[in-house]
Amino acid sequence: MARSNDVLIREVGPRDGLQNEKVIIKTETKIDWVNQLVDTGLNYIELTSFVHPKWIPALADASEVVKGVKRRDNVTFGALVPNEHGLERALEAGIDEVAVFLSASETHNKKNVNKSIDETIVILKNVIKEAKKAGKSVRGYVSTAFHCPYEGKVSHEKVLYVSSILHEIGVEELSLGDTIGMATPNEVEDIVKKISAYIPLQNLAFHPHDTSGTALANSYAAYQVGIRKFDGSVGGLGGCPYAPGATGNVATEDLVFMFEGMKAHTGIDLEKLTQCAVWIQKHFHHRLPSHNLQRALAQRR
Amino acid sequence: MARSNDVLIREVGPRDGLQNEKVIIKTETKIDWVNQLVDTGLNYIELTSFVHPKWIPALADASEVVKGVKRRDNVTFGALVPNEHGLERALEAGIDEVAVFLSASETHNKKNVNKSIDETIVILKNVIKEAKKAGKSVRGYVSTAFHCPYEGKVSHEKVLYVSSILHEIGVEELSLGDTIGMATPNEVEDIVKKISAYIPLQNLAFHPHDTSGTALANSYAAYQVGIRKFDGSVGGLGGCPYAPGATGNVATEDLVFMFEGMKAHTGIDLEKLTQCAVWIQKHFHHRLPSHNLQRALAQRR
Repeated sequence: MARSNDVLIREVGPRDGLQNEKVIIKTETKIDWVNQLVDTGLNYIELTSFVHPKWIPALADASEVVKGVKRRDNVTFGALVPNEHGLERALEAGIDEVAVFLSASETHNKKNVNKSIDETIVILKNVIKEAKKAGKSVRGYVSTAFHCPYEGKVSHEKVLYVSSILHEIGVEELSLGDTIGMATPNEVEDIVKKISAYIPLQNLAFHPHDTSGTALANSYAAYQVGIRKFDGSVGGLGGCPYAPGATGNVATEDLVFMFEGMKAHTGIDLEKLTQCAVWIQKHFHHRLPSHNLQRALAQRR
Repeated sequence: MARSNDVLIREVGPRDGLQNEKVIIKTETKIDWVNQLVDTGLNYIELTSFVHPKWIPALADASEVVKGVKRRDNVTFGALVPNEHGLERALEAGIDEVAVFLSASETHNKKNVNKSIDETIVILKNVIKEAKKAGKSVRGYVSTAFHCPYEGKVSHEKVLYVSSILHEIGVEELSLGDTIGMATPNEVEDIVKKISAYIPLQNLAFHPHDTSGTALANSYAAYQVGIRKFDGSVGGLGGCPYAPGATGNVATEDLVFMFEGMKAHTGIDLEKLTQCAVWIQKHFHHRLPSHNLQRALAQRR
């Protein structure tokens, strides 16, 4: 199969971005924002998370958001689902795709969901089976695929272990997460080469964080070894839960800027996307880390 | 010649960083800071600019700074020199290396020095000749080597023209500047490949700006095609003169983080360098854009 040059951008801001911001955004604002995002040409948006509201109050309105956004034929709306109860709520709300998550590092998984990796797999297996029975596609995040805030550098064996299992139990697209933003391009290249010996490249995505400034360098490295799917958060919303005040998710518009410059087409209107970042920044009490957002605002002055 | 994996980092913060900041730093603070920078393992620091003080009041103390810093055998202190009068002052102050500059775009050069490219070359030729007569090495910046704020994308022919001339008239190291931070990795790769057909790779450096977030991706691309010399500004000091409020120079510590992660050794102590960024940030009224600086501060909280 010839590799296309084009890339697919997965917008995770409404979930991964908002869950890590202190300000709680109103449901109608979220819906308005998502409708604007759809108008930029994005065709995947992760809307929310169906974890228990007591864990993430900012996303307590998960069902209302999913029910409230305008549907389009060419846009897939996903949501994070931690367990069967979350899946029931997600299906009832009418989600298109289910996203599950698992850490490559034991300590991170334990701190995140209070279960071991193997215990989590048992739960996810069932979630995935039920999601497929309901006709939904399934995406999976491999968290701490490079470095863990508790264990340091994560071995390739561990990343391969959780990736292979997720692939086996039915995850169609695996997104490798640089959860604490400490990866460098060589590490991304190495792990993608290793994993793609077992899992086809078209089933892999990269989820960069910009905590150390390497998000685009790592994405470029991933692109060079065949990755064509990338996760971003508009405005760089979200921050880093392990270093509050530092950058977390890469800004989607920074990804789009780079790939469009490389003639790796995203189908996204950078100008419109940047306006979505400008719009949502007004709802927070701090400057968002997106480079293209700040450049656009500076050029207006 | 076998290519070494290691990289040489050129610190330009005391000149390129400070000349674009609104706050004027006291001479003794600058000297103290430079002495701290030398302790990180940096072996090249561009201290100041010998342009007329009326153009850059922040660097009006050029001679005092050069005379005030502690000398070390393995550290080269450079300064920017626009013309013969600047050279006289620089030589009198006791600079080790002279840096000249020229834009690849005619409009940018005109706005910058009020002369055409060809008129500037006549002046630089003489400056370089005199500098060499005084036993000094000469570095040269090619500004707007990718995009120009007035003319847009700059053609390879123009970049090749100014690069070849600077090389011919005696510039030993040519630093290709992404002056407005709009380049993408493919553009860096393309121009380095073209230029290195005429000028040896060891005579080339890359001067990234992070205005669009691509500084490290572009540096990684430059590294992959053989560039081993990179310019950075501690803390990401400097901003973008064409978009005040946006990011300009890449933070030196972000470059060091990436290259050290790639086992491309810099000889610089990242922890100490980040402390130099923390220290200088206290003298400004805004958050500096360095990722590694902000992560270090966040992790302390």
